[in-house]
Amino acid sequence: MTMAGKHLLTLADMARGDLEALLNRAQHFSEGADSRGRLSGIAVCTLFFEPSTRTRLSFQRAAQRLGADVLNFDAATSSTTKGETDVDTLRNIEAMGVRGFVIRHREDCAVARLSDVVQPATKLINAGDGRSQHPTQGLLDMLTIRQAKGDDFSKLKIAIVGDIKHSRVARSDLCALRALGATDVRVCAPESLLPDAETLRGCTVEANVDKAVAGTDVVMTLRLQRERMQEGLVSSLEDYHRDYGITLDRMKLARPDAVVMHPGPMNRGIEISDEVADGPQSLILRQVANGVAVRMAVLETALAG
Amino acid sequence: MTMAGKHLLTLADMARGDLEALLNRAQHFSEGADSRGRLSGIAVCTLFFEPSTRTRLSFQRAAQRLGADVLNFDAATSSTTKGETDVDTLRNIEAMGVRGFVIRHREDCAVARLSDVVQPATKLINAGDGRSQHPTQGLLDMLTIRQAKGDDFSKLKIAIVGDIKHSRVARSDLCALRALGATDVRVCAPESLLPDAETLRGCTVEANVDKAVAGTDVVMTLRLQRERMQEGLVSSLEDYHRDYGITLDRMKLARPDAVVMHPGPMNRGIEISDEVADGPQSLILRQVANGVAVRMAVLETALAG
Amino acid sequence: MTMAGKHLLTLADMARGDLEALLNRAQHFSEGADSRGRLSGIAVCTLFFEPSTRTRLSFQRAAQRLGADVLNFDAATSSTTKGETDVDTLRNIEAMGVRGFVIRHREDCAVARLSDVVQPATKLINAGDGRSQHPTQGLLDMLTIRQAKGDDFSKLKIAIVGDIKHSRVARSDLCALRALGATDVRVCAPESLLPDAETLRGCTVEANVDKAVAGTDVVMTLRLQRERMQEGLVSSLEDYHRDYGITLDRMKLARPDAVVMHPGPMNRGIEISDEVADGPQSLILRQVANGVAVRMAVLETALAG
Repeated sequence: MTMAGKHLLTLADMARGDLEALLNRAQHFSEGADSRGRLSGIAVCTLFFEPSTRTRLSFQRAAQRLGADVLNFDAATSSTTKGETDVDTLRNIEAMGVRGFVIRHREDCAVARLSDVVQPATKLINAGDGRSQHPTQGLLDMLTIRQAKGDDFSKLKIAIVGDIKHSRVARSDLCALRALGATDVRVCAPESLLPDAETLRGCTVEANVDKAVAGTDVVMTLRLQRERMQEGLVSSLEDYHRDYGITLDRMKLARPDAVVMHPGPMNRGIEISDEVADGPQSLILRQVANGVAVRMAVLETALAG
Repeated sequence: MTMAGKHLLTLADMARGDLEALLNRAQHFSEGADSRGRLSGIAVCTLFFEPSTRTRLSFQRAAQRLGADVLNFDAATSSTTKGETDVDTLRNIEAMGVRGFVIRHREDCAVARLSDVVQPATKLINAGDGRSQHPTQGLLDMLTIRQAKGDDFSKLKIAIVGDIKHSRVARSDLCALRALGATDVRVCAPESLLPDAETLRGCTVEANVDKAVAGTDVVMTLRLQRERMQEGLVSSLEDYHRDYGITLDRMKLARPDAVVMHPGPMNRGIEISDEVADGPQSLILRQVANGVAVRMAVLETALAG
Repeated sequence: MTMAGKHLLTLADMARGDLEALLNRAQHFSEGADSRGRLSGIAVCTLFFEPSTRTRLSFQRAAQRLGADVLNFDAATSSTTKGETDVDTLRNIEAMGVRGFVIRHREDCAVARLSDVVQPATKLINAGDGRSQHPTQGLLDMLTIRQAKGDDFSKLKIAIVGDIKHSRVARSDLCALRALGATDVRVCAPESLLPDAETLRGCTVEANVDKAVAGTDVVMTLRLQRERMQEGLVSSLEDYHRDYGITLDRMKLARPDAVVMHPGPMNRGIEISDEVADGPQSLILRQVANGVAVRMAVLETALAG
């Protein structure tokens, strides 16, 4: 497998075979197997320049199940790193003998930039940087779709609804869907929340959410950051819910066996209604469970053997 | 044992046999035994919606001695959970494969409420919620009394002095004392800090602290939150100390072999004097030590086997 | 070895043999050996009354490699300890069964003071207190010098440049250098940042940094806290860099094989230039790596067997 012993920086340009190998290994872990010996004695540090307790916990659980030693460094709140560059912080912790870094960063492409300064044996996992990529979220979304709908993505109709412009989740999902051969991907968002053309390569833009959802197998909705209102990109939460919220009524337009996904944390009543979030079509908690399995596969692939 | 595989939400209505079984198991652990295999591979999360580093550490140490994997989530300071309900936070971490939750919450009866939404295999331990209950503190207090005074609670005279109204510790203690057969329990507090009649069931209210302490085997004093003064419930710290503080002079009114307990952290010079806190009658550090043993018993009972 | 089973409070008055025994053991660990069984089942708590994520991580990694259970208590930000004395906080966590404490404190000589109140089996490691001592930093600096320059310190010319007055690192370094037999130690700092005569015992004070560095084997530079400017102790960062900054030009005055050290985190462009920090003479990351090895040796010596 060509990802073995490599950083995980992005899903852009990842070969289908590499992606599927990661998903297969994640599937194995999602069925419950621990592998305490795989990373035994290896130190993994969660190095978060932007806080995200939930993603940190998921990686931490994955590392525990592989037997790694975990160190947590919340650089966003650490006073000791004031005035220190992220490169110096990283290289210092690397010098302590840490082999794997799970990095969250506010800045676009920061993890790729940081990968240039570490030693060959050190591996970086991108846990979300700026608006660029969140590859483990992309992988867990694909695993979730595959479990629900099988592995032939070319047969699927998929809608992605919401703030795609600011979403690293959507960027990683779109890369992975293309790699896995999805051909009917519709994106739906207010004009102000649509990204550039390159991000949308191979997708259909559909202004009307009802049309976007119609006949789909999978509806992926995204978190609406409340700051989009202050920025004037969204007129009101009520309007957004009316125009883009995923409700039971809207889900009736999708296929009867359609599933709904959300990367969390949810704004209930805004991008998704309670009935959908907690209903039988929701795979939202399955996504969270798959997150641990995917991160086990990713850590093992980067660091083991 | 009927508590096996159950949540620990409250000591109210716990059967004497269940209580004694937990205390017996805690006694075993208090004598030093680790049981690293008991929760090996099982993930326990401390999920604190109200901060309490000390209680968290005690549970964490207990989980380590049982071989569990520990995850800490300080929901009180986490930015990622802003706008997310406690139910969603809990269910998300549950979906990561966490089996046991140690929950601290600001809200009365919150842990019982949360126990309705989890999967059958998931077990919740109440680490203090609102003013309702703090069952592991109640248990460790009972263990401490039993070690000092034997297991026939019907022979004991016990005084509880201080802010009972706002104290989940006192509520859990009173439940446990009743269950274990204590018949002479005196409570003493300013009128403004006395709870409702149901909480006081089976107790004697004694306005005068000297009379409350007279002839007792056990004096339990409680932390006075400084905010009680701002709320006008206590006139001044000096007055409180004079009227309710446990001092060497007051302890001379108790039995010569009487013991003193406090749930910590202490306000020295307010509810308790230095001489008493650090004197030979003080069991305060013994309570802390017993806390780990009790939490081992509780975690093992809820999660093992 | 006479340090076995003792606190590590200071390097002042440590016998040369004890110091060398610790360095020898650290050298062993720096060559990569883990010893997971050494502290297995033993709980070590990082108890930081002053925040320092980086030092905490280094001790945590050391404890992991020895198989200890680690608990972290950031007393600086804990709300539960408000109004509680440091003695009560320490004794409470001690009562939970914690055997080793790694303590960072704002106050001079605090760790020695705290060592008076613990049980005989409890061992304290000073992780930096006030301006007094930072013994593990002193040890890791000595290990780094020894690896680079051999173990005959009497042959070495060493310059220490910067804010020695406020530096516990410099105090520990000076004690260790004296104990190991160094005879040519020059200190260089603005008048306002020079310490008392006792601290400088056996050193030469050199006002001019070029003269201080001339012909040296080792140049140790210190972090300049920006608050020194607000206190009026330093006129400007630009002036400081011009007069005391370690630059490539200045390093040309040292021996060609001279090495440069810094305790981190660096203010690049102030006390050290980028070219020196990242150049071939820099041992800064080697110091960090040695920190873990030294802390393993210190924890093992205090707590094992």
